[in-house]
Amino acid sequence: MAVYFVWKLIIVVKLHGFQTLTNVDTALKDWLSAWSIKQFSQIELPLADVCGRILAEDIIALDDLPCFNRSAMDGYAIRYIDSLNASQLSPVKLMVVETGEVGVGQAEQVWTGGSLPKGADAIVMLENTVRAGNFLEICSPLTPYSNVILRGEDVKKGQLIAKAGTRLTPYIVGLAAALGFNMLKVYKKPLIGILATGNEIVEVGTQVNEHQIFDSNKVVLSAMCWELGAEVIDFGIAKDNVEEISEKICQALKTVDALITTGGTSIGGLDLVPDAVNRIGTPGVIAHGLALRPAMPTGVAVIDGKPVMILSGNPVAAIIGFEIFGRSAVCRLLGLTKLEQRPVLKAVLSRKVSGVLGRKTYVRVFVKLCMGNFVVDPVSAKGSNSISTMTKSNGYVIIPENREGLKEGETVLVQMFGNIEVEV
Amino acid sequence: MAVYFVWKLIIVVKLHGFQTLTNVDTALKDWLSAWSIKQFSQIELPLADVCGRILAEDIIALDDLPCFNRSAMDGYAIRYIDSLNASQLSPVKLMVVETGEVGVGQAEQVWTGGSLPKGADAIVMLENTVRAGNFLEICSPLTPYSNVILRGEDVKKGQLIAKAGTRLTPYIVGLAAALGFNMLKVYKKPLIGILATGNEIVEVGTQVNEHQIFDSNKVVLSAMCWELGAEVIDFGIAKDNVEEISEKICQALKTVDALITTGGTSIGGLDLVPDAVNRIGTPGVIAHGLALRPAMPTGVAVIDGKPVMILSGNPVAAIIGFEIFGRSAVCRLLGLTKLEQRPVLKAVLSRKVSGVLGRKTYVRVFVKLCMGNFVVDPVSAKGSNSISTMTKSNGYVIIPENREGLKEGETVLVQMFGNIEVEV
Repeated sequence: MAVYFVWKLIIVVKLHGFQTLTNVDTALKDWLSAWSIKQFSQIELPLADVCGRILAEDIIALDDLPCFNRSAMDGYAIRYIDSLNASQLSPVKLMVVETGEVGVGQAEQVWTGGSLPKGADAIVMLENTVRAGNFLEICSPLTPYSNVILRGEDVKKGQLIAKAGTRLTPYIVGLAAALGFNMLKVYKKPLIGILATGNEIVEVGTQVNEHQIFDSNKVVLSAMCWELGAEVIDFGIAKDNVEEISEKICQALKTVDALITTGGTSIGGLDLVPDAVNRIGTPGVIAHGLALRPAMPTGVAVIDGKPVMILSGNPVAAIIGFEIFGRSAVCRLLGLTKLEQRPVLKAVLSRKVSGVLGRKTYVRVFVKLCMGNFVVDPVSAKGSNSISTMTKSNGYVIIPENREGLKEGETVLVQMFGNIEVEV
Repeated sequence: MAVYFVWKLIIVVKLHGFQTLTNVDTALKDWLSAWSIKQFSQIELPLADVCGRILAEDIIALDDLPCFNRSAMDGYAIRYIDSLNASQLSPVKLMVVETGEVGVGQAEQVWTGGSLPKGADAIVMLENTVRAGNFLEICSPLTPYSNVILRGEDVKKGQLIAKAGTRLTPYIVGLAAALGFNMLKVYKKPLIGILATGNEIVEVGTQVNEHQIFDSNKVVLSAMCWELGAEVIDFGIAKDNVEEISEKICQALKTVDALITTGGTSIGGLDLVPDAVNRIGTPGVIAHGLALRPAMPTGVAVIDGKPVMILSGNPVAAIIGFEIFGRSAVCRLLGLTKLEQRPVLKAVLSRKVSGVLGRKTYVRVFVKLCMGNFVVDPVSAKGSNSISTMTKSNGYVIIPENREGLKEGETVLVQMFGNIEVEV
């Protein structure tokens, strides 16, 4: 019995007060299936304003691109068959016309991008011709449609260019322009609310007293939402009081599409957010206490169909909690059909890094290029409080639940959130 | 003599009308050294508006972070020396006080993030204690500063957080917030002008006649400028007339920090932009006709200290010309101290791809994950006209000037402009 008690104690200690820790992927899956988007609001915008927005309708080509045969070069349009006997020693002589129609033995001058005159089926490049008055000499044979961009060569009429739920790149927008679109329907930006909690927290820009700290989490989380393309509403700071927290969450959920809280989510006397959430609506908290490091005290909840992320008050834990749950939620609320991942690469670990068996560990790393190879220096696998570790890193490496750590020299996948300096 | 003539002819054909082709890196270097930024305009903005902007002043910590010793856990602050004899069988008993000062044999309750009471030098976690009335039992010894976040542990007073000329990430902004900044000085956005030329080009949204095409290049290039963080002014379309082009460039240069033209830059009867540029000011065209594929007819110029990019009218050539010259110029005009590169990764070519010896070739590619490995499918190394190749690709691979091509199975560096789907 004493042994059992000691064993129990150790387990409890390991969980920092949580009875059980939920697997991260399970929590994410359960949470995402507990809420869904009813209907996306749309807005039609001119092409100049749509880059980076999420397409709300399929773009289908209404015509061929190009919609006529074009010259790919400056030169002369001819009938290729007229050129078949041409050679350096015995050039072919053609008559230059300006009628928009090329007959047998004729040629018409064209410029790059111009349409192919009627009757012509090849372009001889300007630099391969000798012009003498109304006559043109060519010295080598052409093949059919030499230097001609054929109608529909780029895009065929009816072709799908981009699907609804795609983030618009400069190239998709450019292709839409080439096809004659001048407006596109995109989804309205989702509204994400952010609420901080904590007696010791004060707003940036106000007077800080001894033993108080500035609220940096709302600032970071807002910026991360903004980077993804969402709008953010700041709901201020709630004191460590379950009624006040409940009331502010209620208020926020009237306007926002999703809510993020930060702080008050461990198992302590002042960790009131999960309770506050559960008072408001159903199903409430879906998971709280995750097999995740850092960010174990992260919680996810749904209140009356709206997602709520209960993030830690520790800056790095809040960032990593958002990275997993916020990113997924915001991508879905933006209208993206797929989770948008960070850029990835593979690189070699410069030294071993320890995790905790049974926990998914996010290691902050710095990837650099060393003699042509990408090398990963671990910056920190713990220290959920030290936000400066984020500014010294440019990526995450994940230690999976079934590994105690990663070995020196191991090739790992890195999710990049910053730049590497590379000569290209 | 005849042999010499034929050889000359072949060379000229290969150059598509250019007498010589300039090496891309040389052109870029010469061009960048021919203009410089006089003084950057600055603006002070609240933290909520600075993410993605370029920092105009060094951020230096004005205080330690944290600026007091804090508890990393919910628990009790004690003097660690009091715990040294504690064990499961013989717990140490301490008296709980609420005075903000911990004496010998005393303990005071603290919450995560709270300040360490005077006299205390360690925190025992709540779950490792048994409370009975005013007494607390602890069962294991602590080391000095257990579970304490030390003053200055994250950042030391006077430490450099970020240098002027850095793009602000959520993490830098968050760290600035934690340090008490509520405004930051950033550079004003540079103004980039874009002018299209060509008799056959019409504005998107207007009526297109037979044999005319929509101007998609201004749309793409504007979006690429916007992605980097610049402002764009659209100067419309100039007809293929050297006076009209000159006049519009002159007009544009009165307001913009840099100008991009697209179209009219080969060596043809209607390729008038380089001439128009040279009419306006000095030093004029720095390089025109590059050892680059696609985008050979690209030119770079400087007029009275302002950079001008003379890009091709072919959509892909314009995009790749911007990728090389526009990106460098816009990064510099933004105030970035370093060129901001696209995310990179290494991957294996699924099949060989041909370039041209002596030319730097940008191959559009699609990178995918195949059984745990990044594999590169070449999409197109030519076809500078087909903008749909850009929407089918997610990266570039460069074939250097000294290679005829790249081999199947070769590991290559890819510059990514789109996403890869990866399970992380």
